Amino acid sequence: MPGAELTPSERAPGLLLGKGVELPESVELGGNVVVHAGVRVGEGSRLQDGCVIGKPVALGMRSSTSLATGAVGTEIGAGTTVGSGAVVVEGAAIGERCVVADQAHVRERTTIGDESVVGRGASVENDVRMGARVRMQTGAYVTAWSVVEDDVFLAPGVMLTNDPTAGRRPPDVELQGATLRRACRVGAGAVLLPGIEIGEDAFVAAGAVVTHDVPAGALVMGVPARVVS
Amino acid sequence: MPGAELTPSERAPGLLLGKGVELPESVELGGNVVVHAGVRVGEGSRLQDGCVIGKPVALGMRSSTSLATGAVGTEIGAGTTVGSGAVVVEGAAIGERCVVADQAHVRERTTIGDESVVGRGASVENDVRMGARVRMQTGAYVTAWSVVEDDVFLAPGVMLTNDPTAGRRPPDVELQGATLRRACRVGAGAVLLPGIEIGEDAFVAAGAVVTHDVPAGALVMGVPARVVS
Amino acid sequence: MPGAELTPSERAPGLLLGKGVELPESVELGGNVVVHAGVRVGEGSRLQDGCVIGKPVALGMRSSTSLATGAVGTEIGAGTTVGSGAVVVEGAAIGERCVVADQAHVRERTTIGDESVVGRGASVENDVRMGARVRMQTGAYVTAWSVVEDDVFLAPGVMLTNDPTAGRRPPDVELQGATLRRACRVGAGAVLLPGIEIGEDAFVAAGAVVTHDVPAGALVMGVPARVVS
Repeated sequence: MPGAELTPSERAPGLLLGKGVELPESVELGGNVVVHAGVRVGEGSRLQDGCVIGKPVALGMRSSTSLATGAVGTEIGAGTTVGSGAVVVEGAAIGERCVVADQAHVRERTTIGDESVVGRGASVENDVRMGARVRMQTGAYVTAWSVVEDDVFLAPGVMLTNDPTAGRRPPDVELQGATLRRACRVGAGAVLLPGIEIGEDAFVAAGAVVTHDVPAGALVMGVPARVVS
Repeated sequence: MPGAELTPSERAPGLLLGKGVELPESVELGGNVVVHAGVRVGEGSRLQDGCVIGKPVALGMRSSTSLATGAVGTEIGAGTTVGSGAVVVEGAAIGERCVVADQAHVRERTTIGDESVVGRGASVENDVRMGARVRMQTGAYVTAWSVVEDDVFLAPGVMLTNDPTAGRRPPDVELQGATLRRACRVGAGAVLLPGIEIGEDAFVAAGAVVTHDVPAGALVMGVPARVVS
Repeated sequence: MPGAELTPSERAPGLLLGKGVELPESVELGGNVVVHAGVRVGEGSRLQDGCVIGKPVALGMRSSTSLATGAVGTEIGAGTTVGSGAVVVEGAAIGERCVVADQAHVRERTTIGDESVVGRGASVENDVRMGARVRMQTGAYVTAWSVVEDDVFLAPGVMLTNDPTAGRRPPDVELQGATLRRACRVGAGAVLLPGIEIGEDAFVAAGAVVTHDVPAGALVMGVPARVVS
C-alpha cells in the first residue's frame, strides 16, 4: 500500500514522524502531531495538538498550480507556534517567532518572514512571498503568487484573488496575485480583484471591493472602492 | 460508554476504522485518519492526515435540518483526495477524481460529481446536489438544499444562503437553497440571498450581493447586484 | 522536553487526557480526541473525532490580547456536542445542550449560554459574553470582547471587528467588541465596524457594512448600511 511513511514516536503521545525530521528537544509538542519527511523545526517552537507539518502536495485533476519541482523540505523557524489543526504544506518556509494559528493553512513554496501571524483559520496559498511582522486575522485569505511586504495588516475575512478569467484561464494567461506594499492595511471582509497593488501605508476600508490599484497612503472605500483621502 | 465503535488498524499509523469499511489496498493513507462504519472508498483514493470520513450526523437542539433517515453509507469515489483535517459526514457521496481539500467539509446526503473540487476550508452543507467539474475555492460555502450544476466556479469566500426568514422559520416554510446553472461563475466574497437562481454561463462580480435571479449569460455587479451586460 | 502532559487513555481509541479531567461515563467519544488538564465535561456530551478541548493559550509575539491570568479550567456543559476538528481553548465555558460544530473555534475566557450553536468553521474569540440560544452559522466570526445576547442570529460569513486603529493601537486604546442585543439578526457576509451596537430585534441585511449603531427594531442595508425601515 502506498502511504506517507510515517512512524509513531515516543517523544509525545500520538506523534507521527516522517524520515529525516529535525525536531530539537526544546520543541513543545501537543498530542497527535504529524511531521512529514524533510521538515526542519527550530529551537523552542511549539507544535500544537493535531497540526500537520510538511504535508505532501495534493493537487486536483484540473488544478492550474504548477507542479512542485525540487521541493527541498519545510522550515518552521525557531520560536514559532503552529496551532491545533493547522496544516503547513511541504516546501513552505516559515520564519522565527511566527504564529500559524489554530486551523490555519500555509501552502507549498510560500515563505513567511519573522514574527508574522497567520490568524485562526486564515490561509496563505502557494508561492506567496510574505514579509516580517505581517498580521493576518481570522479567516483572511492570501491568494497564490501574491507579494505581502513587511508590517501589512489584513483584517478578518479579507479575500484576495488572482485569476482574471475567473476560472477560464487558457494556458498562456498567468495568475495575478496581489501586491501589498509595506504597512498597508486592508479592512474586514474587503475583496481585491486579481493583480491589485495596494500602496505603502494605504488603507482599504472594511467591505470595500478593490478594482483598481490603490496609491501609497490613500484611503479607499466602497463598492467599487474609490479614493476618499 | 456510548461511542463511535472505532478500532485501531495496523494498515496506517493512527488509523481508526468503523465496521464494514471498504478500503482497498490502493488507497493512500496519511496519519491519524478516521473512517467510520459503512464508508466505501474507491481505488487509488488518498485520505490525508487527520481527515474524518463518515462522521455520524450531530444536530443541534434547534437545528431545522431534517433528521437523517436511512443513511446508507458514505461514498468516496476512485481517485479522489480528501485532505488533512477535512470532514465528510455520513451519507455524503463524492464522485471520482475529486478533491475535498484540507480542512474542507461536506455534509450528509450531499452528492458531488466527478472531478469537482471543494477548496481548502470550503463547505458544502447537507442535501446539496452538485455536478461534475465544479470548482469551489478557499472558504466558499454552499448552503443546504442547493443545486450546483456542472462546471460551476465559486471564487474564494462566496456565501450562499437558504433561509428567507433569517432564523425565524415556522415549520411550514422550507429552506430555499441556491440554484447555480451550468458553468455560471460567482466572484470572490459575493453573497446570494435565499432561493436565488444564477443562469447558465452567467457571471456574478466579486463582492456583489445578489437579491434577484440572474439571467443566463448575464453579468451582474454591485450591492444590490444589477445587470450590467 | 516541555509538553502538554497528555496521557493516552483506553476509554476511546486515540484519546489523550491531561491531568484532572472530568469526563463522565455518559460522554460519547470519537477517535483521537484530546482533552487537556482541568477540563470538566458534563453528562451526555459528545466529543467528536479529533476535537481539542482546553488547549493551552498560545499568543503571538505581538498579540494585543491580555495574558490569561488565573484561568481555572474549561467547561463543556451537559448534553453539548463538540464537533470534529473543533478547538476549545483553555478557560472557555460552554453551556448545556450547545453545539460547537465541526472545525469551529472558541477562545479563552469566553462564555456561551445554553443551547447556543457555533456553526461549522465559525469562530468566537476571547473574552466574549454570549447568551443562550444564539445561532452562529458557517464561518461566522465574533471578535474578542463582544457581547452577544440571547437569541441572536448570525448568518454565514458575518464578520465582527474590534480594533478602531486597524492594527496600530497604542497601549491606551482598548479593543471595542460588538454589542449584539437580544434577538437581533445579521445577514450573510455583513461586516460590523469596531464598537458597533445592534439593537434588540434589529436586522442587518446580507452584505451590509455597518458603520453606525443600529436602533432596536430597525432594518439596515447597503454599503455603508443605512436604515430603510
